[in-house]
Amino acid sequence: MSRSPQVGIADGNGWRDHLAERADAIKSAGRWRSTRTYDSLGPSGTLDHGPDPVVTFASNDYLGLSSHPAVIEAASAATHRWGTGAGASRLICGTRPVHDELQAELADWKHTEAALVFPTGFAANLGVLTVLGGPGVRIVSDELNHASIIDGARLAGAEVAIYPHLDLAAASALITEWPGRSVLVTDAVFSMDGDAVDMEEAVERCAQLGAALVVDEAHSVWGPNLSGPAGPLDAPPVVRVGTLSKSLGAMGGFVAGPRAVIDLLVNAARPFIFSTGLSPGDAAAALAALHLVRSPEGRALVRRVRAHTDRLTPNHPSPIVPVIIGDEHRAVAASEDLLDLGYWVPAIRPPTVAPGTSRLRITLSAAHDDEHIDGLLAALDRLGLR
Amino acid sequence: MSRSPQVGIADGNGWRDHLAERADAIKSAGRWRSTRTYDSLGPSGTLDHGPDPVVTFASNDYLGLSSHPAVIEAASAATHRWGTGAGASRLICGTRPVHDELQAELADWKHTEAALVFPTGFAANLGVLTVLGGPGVRIVSDELNHASIIDGARLAGAEVAIYPHLDLAAASALITEWPGRSVLVTDAVFSMDGDAVDMEEAVERCAQLGAALVVDEAHSVWGPNLSGPAGPLDAPPVVRVGTLSKSLGAMGGFVAGPRAVIDLLVNAARPFIFSTGLSPGDAAAALAALHLVRSPEGRALVRRVRAHTDRLTPNHPSPIVPVIIGDEHRAVAASEDLLDLGYWVPAIRPPTVAPGTSRLRITLSAAHDDEHIDGLLAALDRLGLR
Ligand SMILES: Cc1ncc(COP(=O)(O)O)c(C=O)c1O
Ligand SMILES: Cc1ncc(COP(=O)(O)O)c(C=O)c1O
Repeated sequence: MSRSPQVGIADGNGWRDHLAERADAIKSAGRWRSTRTYDSLGPSGTLDHGPDPVVTFASNDYLGLSSHPAVIEAASAATHRWGTGAGASRLICGTRPVHDELQAELADWKHTEAALVFPTGFAANLGVLTVLGGPGVRIVSDELNHASIIDGARLAGAEVAIYPHLDLAAASALITEWPGRSVLVTDAVFSMDGDAVDMEEAVERCAQLGAALVVDEAHSVWGPNLSGPAGPLDAPPVVRVGTLSKSLGAMGGFVAGPRAVIDLLVNAARPFIFSTGLSPGDAAAALAALHLVRSPEGRALVRRVRAHTDRLTPNHPSPIVPVIIGDEHRAVAASEDLLDLGYWVPAIRPPTVAPGTSRLRITLSAAHDDEHIDGLLAALDRLGLR
Repeated sequence: MSRSPQVGIADGNGWRDHLAERADAIKSAGRWRSTRTYDSLGPSGTLDHGPDPVVTFASNDYLGLSSHPAVIEAASAATHRWGTGAGASRLICGTRPVHDELQAELADWKHTEAALVFPTGFAANLGVLTVLGGPGVRIVSDELNHASIIDGARLAGAEVAIYPHLDLAAASALITEWPGRSVLVTDAVFSMDGDAVDMEEAVERCAQLGAALVVDEAHSVWGPNLSGPAGPLDAPPVVRVGTLSKSLGAMGGFVAGPRAVIDLLVNAARPFIFSTGLSPGDAAAALAALHLVRSPEGRALVRRVRAHTDRLTPNHPSPIVPVIIGDEHRAVAASEDLLDLGYWVPAIRPPTVAPGTSRLRITLSAAHDDEHIDGLLAALDRLGLR
């Protein structure tokens, strides 16, 4: 960290070299990435303007609702009515009636007293963890929790204790040994493994130990979900985080929970207070999608994506089906081989997943039809990947 | 922090009391807030479904572009074409052609090699500061910088040094005394004061001292902007953060700068990598608004909001015009008095601004007409506020 002033002045304190070194480190590990342009929402479109369409198994649009005519119409109508942006923070003048309506519907859906919409799911996790966390609080977090949970815990300035994946007994021990308040935070479905926490056990342990529970249900398409209404007022809070950007096909995030928590978020969650409200079109899309999810049509879409999932791995708990390859270069090669066959399944590598667990991450959607699944299975077979 | 296990079990380790105490502390300071619903994008609409419309001077839709027919049409067309959501992270399959086009146009507008779109401006600041910051780096930050800059600096794990508002000589001293790399970060226009940094001086000092410069131009409607192309490759990086949610009337944020920085953000900025891409409709709205901003029509809108501003305070550097009241209860009372007269101007209080500097924050927009300004001026006069 020592510098010669001359060098500092000449090359920006080493900024140029520093940036180049960081890029080189990523490149030489074979992990350098750039965005690829997909000219469709999926499941079939053209990649990087290439000649042949490819079928993607990569999106989180699990129910295909982002291309549902009713959802598109709702977004378009709200945009015509209220304009393209919220214009300010929700606390200044950025709340339109559609935000209130969406929040009421989310609270009803999640069986909570109230809900608050954030601009993204990432912001929702930052918001809830910084408000429930803080000095003196221990945040007890599954080692495979989503990046936004990790960053929220960091930003909270709380004591953070990580437990082995899904090991709720270990989590309980971390809560018990801590003399102050604790927050247990876990993905309901883990974004890179597609496995699920035992929600009833988590709720029970937290209630017994007096820990607040924050569950991120971003990828809960058919479960696990907390069942029934939240506990009595005396119990520690149970808070449900979700996103509007996956099953609901839009953009945005939310926190649903006891009114005392939600009202405090309004007053203290910086990513809510100091960021522009969700665009009316995004909010209206999510609301229309939520109406569908709660209708017979939506339930049929859930059955459909669940049936697709069962064809890959019977009784898998979510539409995220990992195919663990191990070595990251082999995972990338497998992804490229699949692409040559017309199927786009991303390779997920470190640092997103642990070294030695590189994988193909297949996500299924109700937008896929049976032929898409037939084709993917045949391609996986042909490449010896199942 | 010690607990009796029985109490812990009975009341959730004190969660209920803790939440109530925090709420009470805010309430007894007279700072408890809740969202209010405005049934319009502005500048005139109904507040909380009240009987009479009010004229708002609170939004950041400075050019009125969120209700411009061309912007609305662009959002609606993109939503019909690509659906209501991006469906995944921009790095997975969440990049549509409209994201690329928007990025190219933003880079051209900002005279930088490249630009990257984030889901929000808040996320853009978190992203750039966590990637340029980090252990060993000192982030030198104006004391009145935006909350997203403060949180980004915290999350970066860098050494953070705060300098008195606009005091670039003090900032330089903080850079000089630090043996490693430094990042100077400043709002171009400060969101609660509407005053502006001396951009040329900031650029010059950073170039001389070898510090990276991050400028948040969220509220730069007619300036200050960095002029001309970025410096030679050897200079420390100059990075421009912006938002799509204010002058551009949409939602989202961006970082524009040297390609080496942008490419590194793609690979390392967690709020970019681990969050769903901006909805195609939001991206298309911002792109259409940017085309307008760069056209004669847009330049006329800038002249219009500038003329409105001059009527309040001649030569004020931005459309954010604070009326400092001092005492926070008086600021709230003044805001309520104005509302009774049909003008909605929010009171800004601690902790958003320093104690003793509570204020009315008037924001002007090209969507206001001359009569709106006449009326506001008369109301301010009548209440003895100018
Ligand atoms: C478990 C989990 N939580 C939160 C998020 C963030 O949500 P959003 O994409 O809406 O920012 C994601 C993914 O993006 C996720 O997988
Ligand atoms: C200076 C500044 N930077 C960043 C932001 C965040 O941008 P966004 O609202 O798009 O999240 C804001 C306001 O919201 C701001 O005032």
